[in-house]
Amino acid sequence: MPAPLEFYFDFSSPYGFLASLRIDELAKRYGRSVDWKPILLGAVFKISGQQPLLEIPLKGDYTKHDLARFARLWGVAIGMPPVFPFSSVAASRAFYWLHQRDPAKARAFAKAAYAAAWQGQKDLGKSDTVAELVVALGDSREDVLAGMVEPATKDTLRATVDAAIAKGVFGSPFIIVDKEGFWGADRLWQVEEWLERGGW
Amino acid sequence: MPAPLEFYFDFSSPYGFLASLRIDELAKRYGRSVDWKPILLGAVFKISGQQPLLEIPLKGDYTKHDLARFARLWGVAIGMPPVFPFSSVAASRAFYWLHQRDPAKARAFAKAAYAAAWQGQKDLGKSDTVAELVVALGDSREDVLAGMVEPATKDTLRATVDAAIAKGVFGSPFIIVDKEGFWGADRLWQVEEWLERGGW
Repeated sequence: MPAPLEFYFDFSSPYGFLASLRIDELAKRYGRSVDWKPILLGAVFKISGQQPLLEIPLKGDYTKHDLARFARLWGVAIGMPPVFPFSSVAASRAFYWLHQRDPAKARAFAKAAYAAAWQGQKDLGKSDTVAELVVALGDSREDVLAGMVEPATKDTLRATVDAAIAKGVFGSPFIIVDKEGFWGADRLWQVEEWLERGGW
Repeated sequence: MPAPLEFYFDFSSPYGFLASLRIDELAKRYGRSVDWKPILLGAVFKISGQQPLLEIPLKGDYTKHDLARFARLWGVAIGMPPVFPFSSVAASRAFYWLHQRDPAKARAFAKAAYAAAWQGQKDLGKSDTVAELVVALGDSREDVLAGMVEPATKDTLRATVDAAIAKGVFGSPFIIVDKEGFWGADRLWQVEEWLERGGW
């Protein structure tokens, strides 16, 4: 059984959102599963010294135009969240709290959270928004709000971010397949090529 | 007759080199020509505040690995130039000096210069290296060395860089097709999609 693909993403990353819409299906075509791993780009940028994409002169304007064009090409809706940038800490913690008990539910949450931020124009930076999404999946509001601040939840997120940095993850989305890292929604064609050929 | 694609690149950009190997053929498949426009990323980075790619922590290591992998996928050789980063001023000036009299020769020079730096491991930052490449195309060493420092040559390069920035060019390669800009060798698939569909 080949190892799952590792799909690193930040909930505040629009290209991560775009990749999230296709990564499972892409992997499935080659009999592979995907391990979703939300991370915090803020922590990564502290090391790499990068700025948030949309704030870079020239590149930021390009990115706004490109996102709309990219989404149109794939036939999906995308729009800026009401508050941006927003912190993905709450959503990431909710993900890992769910994940320790039910990985499938954690993934369902991740998809709902991405859609809420980038298609539903909800403020995912707020714990309230995050809790509502988890409640819709069957947990109680009290449980998730408590779970998000449990030391074990916080530690899992922190350890995942540290491990990602140690593996060279520096952006979102970042996909690792057979120890090869590929950065960017625009690189899914190379991930596919890698899966199809078994490397090159 | 549709407008030519504008192909912006910096001679010191390895992804620009990779794109240069495919852009003409890609455009030709859709009955389009390509206008090659060397620029100076240094001038662009002054505005965007970006750092040279290979110097960014985490991202720099990824890039080195990715370049070798990308070139392998396309079946082409690539290796770091002996001095890096190097200034692309001399090569860019030689290009525009040639271009005012013979655009086809200027393009032949650009291909030879990219190959010299990224496949032949020549130091393209030196005027001597640049002059040798132009001499191989039939001009005299004296003429090219004088032509590179003519005010008209310098002005053309400066004006091209300024115009590129005004159009939102912030990286290399950057391809403009029908007023739509696409950044990166890994976006050629979208350039192709755009040409095939006539936009989307």
